[in-house]
Amino acid sequence: MSSPTASPTVEYVLTVVCEDRPGIVHAVTGAIVEVGGNITESRQFESGATQRFYMRLQLATSASPAEIAAALAPVVERFGIEHRLDEVARPVRTLILGSTAKHCVNDLLFQIDAGHLPIEVPLILANHPTLEPLATFYGVPFEHLPTKGEGAKAAFEDRVREAVVEHDVELVVLARYMQILTPELCEEFEGRCINIHHSFLPGFKGANPYRQAHARGVKQIGATAHFVTSDLDEGPIIEQDVIRVDHTRSPQELMAIGQDAEVRTLRQAVTWFSQSRVLLDGTRTVIFR
Amino acid sequence: MSSPTASPTVEYVLTVVCEDRPGIVHAVTGAIVEVGGNITESRQFESGATQRFYMRLQLATSASPAEIAAALAPVVERFGIEHRLDEVARPVRTLILGSTAKHCVNDLLFQIDAGHLPIEVPLILANHPTLEPLATFYGVPFEHLPTKGEGAKAAFEDRVREAVVEHDVELVVLARYMQILTPELCEEFEGRCINIHHSFLPGFKGANPYRQAHARGVKQIGATAHFVTSDLDEGPIIEQDVIRVDHTRSPQELMAIGQDAEVRTLRQAVTWFSQSRVLLDGTRTVIFR
Amino acid sequence: MSSPTASPTVEYVLTVVCEDRPGIVHAVTGAIVEVGGNITESRQFESGATQRFYMRLQLATSASPAEIAAALAPVVERFGIEHRLDEVARPVRTLILGSTAKHCVNDLLFQIDAGHLPIEVPLILANHPTLEPLATFYGVPFEHLPTKGEGAKAAFEDRVREAVVEHDVELVVLARYMQILTPELCEEFEGRCINIHHSFLPGFKGANPYRQAHARGVKQIGATAHFVTSDLDEGPIIEQDVIRVDHTRSPQELMAIGQDAEVRTLRQAVTWFSQSRVLLDGTRTVIFR
Amino acid sequence: MSSPTASPTVEYVLTVVCEDRPGIVHAVTGAIVEVGGNITESRQFESGATQRFYMRLQLATSASPAEIAAALAPVVERFGIEHRLDEVARPVRTLILGSTAKHCVNDLLFQIDAGHLPIEVPLILANHPTLEPLATFYGVPFEHLPTKGEGAKAAFEDRVREAVVEHDVELVVLARYMQILTPELCEEFEGRCINIHHSFLPGFKGANPYRQAHARGVKQIGATAHFVTSDLDEGPIIEQDVIRVDHTRSPQELMAIGQDAEVRTLRQAVTWFSQSRVLLDGTRTVIFR
Repeated sequence: MSSPTASPTVEYVLTVVCEDRPGIVHAVTGAIVEVGGNITESRQFESGATQRFYMRLQLATSASPAEIAAALAPVVERFGIEHRLDEVARPVRTLILGSTAKHCVNDLLFQIDAGHLPIEVPLILANHPTLEPLATFYGVPFEHLPTKGEGAKAAFEDRVREAVVEHDVELVVLARYMQILTPELCEEFEGRCINIHHSFLPGFKGANPYRQAHARGVKQIGATAHFVTSDLDEGPIIEQDVIRVDHTRSPQELMAIGQDAEVRTLRQAVTWFSQSRVLLDGTRTVIFR
Repeated sequence: MSSPTASPTVEYVLTVVCEDRPGIVHAVTGAIVEVGGNITESRQFESGATQRFYMRLQLATSASPAEIAAALAPVVERFGIEHRLDEVARPVRTLILGSTAKHCVNDLLFQIDAGHLPIEVPLILANHPTLEPLATFYGVPFEHLPTKGEGAKAAFEDRVREAVVEHDVELVVLARYMQILTPELCEEFEGRCINIHHSFLPGFKGANPYRQAHARGVKQIGATAHFVTSDLDEGPIIEQDVIRVDHTRSPQELMAIGQDAEVRTLRQAVTWFSQSRVLLDGTRTVIFR
Repeated sequence: MSSPTASPTVEYVLTVVCEDRPGIVHAVTGAIVEVGGNITESRQFESGATQRFYMRLQLATSASPAEIAAALAPVVERFGIEHRLDEVARPVRTLILGSTAKHCVNDLLFQIDAGHLPIEVPLILANHPTLEPLATFYGVPFEHLPTKGEGAKAAFEDRVREAVVEHDVELVVLARYMQILTPELCEEFEGRCINIHHSFLPGFKGANPYRQAHARGVKQIGATAHFVTSDLDEGPIIEQDVIRVDHTRSPQELMAIGQDAEVRTLRQAVTWFSQSRVLLDGTRTVIFR
Repeated sequence: MSSPTASPTVEYVLTVVCEDRPGIVHAVTGAIVEVGGNITESRQFESGATQRFYMRLQLATSASPAEIAAALAPVVERFGIEHRLDEVARPVRTLILGSTAKHCVNDLLFQIDAGHLPIEVPLILANHPTLEPLATFYGVPFEHLPTKGEGAKAAFEDRVREAVVEHDVELVVLARYMQILTPELCEEFEGRCINIHHSFLPGFKGANPYRQAHARGVKQIGATAHFVTSDLDEGPIIEQDVIRVDHTRSPQELMAIGQDAEVRTLRQAVTWFSQSRVLLDGTRTVIFR
């Protein structure tokens, strides 16, 4: 079924989340047929854990977003659907929070520049000036605001809130920001704030985990990218990766290897988020890669 | 929408392949709604390479296969769909062809026995008697038929054809059978005969590839599971895996490592096939894992 | 330097552990020159953590073990060396303790049979009869002794001690034995008892870890092989491996995947141990692979 | 044995290659004892393929390089040893040849800057100006010289030769330089020129390999770093890595994934080279990692 108008065909991504019931896919795809859309990619999942239904599909159509929304409205109403419609590959407005570590920010900016990562960064906000030259090189605005000192952290978080509004930010990435967000901020940004941290088999609590990992002689060093929640480092996991190591590695070398795992894991998590491939399912994520 | 009858709910897997056009998903899911089905898992893919549409979905319904088929019939007709409907987890009748190597057969039989691999093996047919004790241990019928000597290979292949009919075989697995099938047999079993062979970066042609791999000092040893075609070792790839090696490994050790890659790769390919997750897309496969 | 006698050349593996000081390698290799030995492989490591020196070397010589020991004696004395001399590829006498799970035992016995794992198993001792047919198939003696009931566990451990003496056992492998050894037994078998257990990023404490891993949506399922100590699951790590998973996997599927990780990880740990490649360095291991 | 003088202790790396004979290690370590050296890391390997002996060791001593050389001289003479003595972590003077692709150069410069890669780059020479801003950002001299046009390629290679002399270059890295070196240059830089290229299971010959890989539906995309020889892309392999892909990836996405494999593989190869961990063994390498 081709579109009746001469408008150019645009590819959209639609995500659908609701209570699981028969007939959802038929109803949603009916709305898509109505606007002359062709589904080019689709995945769905019914969560046994939460009895909820998750769907992500890409459709090509010459209908406008408003026309698609109008066609979907009765279905959304009937099934109590939370949905999101977006153009495929539209850059997601992303605020990066950083500190002194450069590896994650360097990779994100390089990938954007190379055209491999569909996000745009209106601002990098950091509690140290270290990242400024890198930001400047890639033409990304940079602000430095200390988090040390009376009221400094609250002021930093206020600036975060302000920047989110100012730039209509859709995603906040903690690229080794190294500060714990207040529970209030965690709640405000639920499901749109991604953190990266090292991970080990087994896990280690407390300071200097690479030293602990060295002392225990772990053979795999990893990283976890997860949504930030007020439960520190325990938010829903988006991606994990590991790299093999051995006894010859010093704690410093383990850290360098861990940074490489962090870079790749964060890049992957941000890529999937920016493609609407990450959906929250209670304490875990559904990843439609 | 619950079923009007008191029949127990059964989970089915449906695969759909046809020329890509708008409205397919809506039409197929309409038929599913008609039989009171609930879709529990779904993936689809539109191949840019062949302009064909591929869908795999699982549905739970108390309707019978005949009722589902009847509901689907007009849709199948309208879109020119090749489809397949099966019960989820129904064991796939699998003929194993072997020779002297035990590793792949041992793993397949162990995984079946452990309840991890939804296939059943009515027969293992081999050109050497080596696998007989293993087959006996797992209670699987075994036949030995030589492939050496005048007419022996043709007789072997005739027995394969016969066994396929006799046991209504759905899948033929070459578990290190080490003989080249005739082009005729390849054609007869197109899309339902899986082979496993070693793979290297870079590839090596000719005899004794592990010795060549050792001489070139390769750092990754792998395996490829693919559909058999008359183009030797060049059929559509289903799965590939690799294992890291180094200069200290002898050709014999490389072979042992390669066998481990073969075991895992073949197991994965057979698992996906038995779950209707492998669809042919011209010279390649669509894997809905 | 060829040997003065007509004795056949034998390849030995020698491991050396002592306090780190200059001159050790020169002194040890001097003894090897004395017996006409040629070093065919060697690795050494100086542990910053413990200030200890670790060396593993393979040497080919026609001298007898007694002649080698005599040549080494003054060096051993001078540097306070703990050493071990063994023939390369001599099968290590290994007692396997099992329960109901078959995957690890099946793999170990298959690998031995295939000639890939240089151990011999004089006995499998289990607290359930499940493994008996498998043991019988591979011609390995099997005993079943319950661990439930008053005094049963103590009796089981006494039988373990007895079997270790009776068969001059060098290595005890807990192949999913699923019982906690008493601290006394742990101490008796320190450095020669290997356990395998699942591992996750992050780690989970308590019952049903696969269910927990499913609920948290982990993306990597792994396994750790380690020396048993009285500190449960916290002994020195020998090997770790992971396999990628996603949200579509049920807890049961995660468990099957975890078992595959266990199989490979335990096999690797036992292989390295049997080749004298695993040396204890305090709370961690030095692996000369 | 501590040094008799008050000179500071320096850590050296020594590599030794010669025909395999008994007594080499004893003789070499005797020289090290003579200069009061303590061996802190050591690996050796006897190649069955070439009957040659390879050793790499690190030693801490307060003796000067000249004193060490003097102590080694009779041993070198006696066994016909090719050897190399260097300070551990001394930055290796590395000439980078590039073209338009940024990913490898970006990573190398970032890793140097982060202190993770012990090389220094006196010059990046490229046949396009694309890399200049990146070079400038990291403070690395950059020159642009076209390779198109009559005599251009010969002029480029002459400039390479000149730069190698001018900066006393020890390593030439082809970071996606995309031009074939003349056989003469390959020979001049034998064993000190590293190239990176994509690799596939199976391999593909000819143009546009990512399109071919897509058409064949490969499941693993990889990269190979190797020493350059006049036999194009067939030089001794230093490192290989792979990344899993599936049918949903476009040729463009495969290329982006392949670039990530190239980045990590080249970084690893350069790291090992700069630590004297890569030794040539005929058509393959010995990697003492």
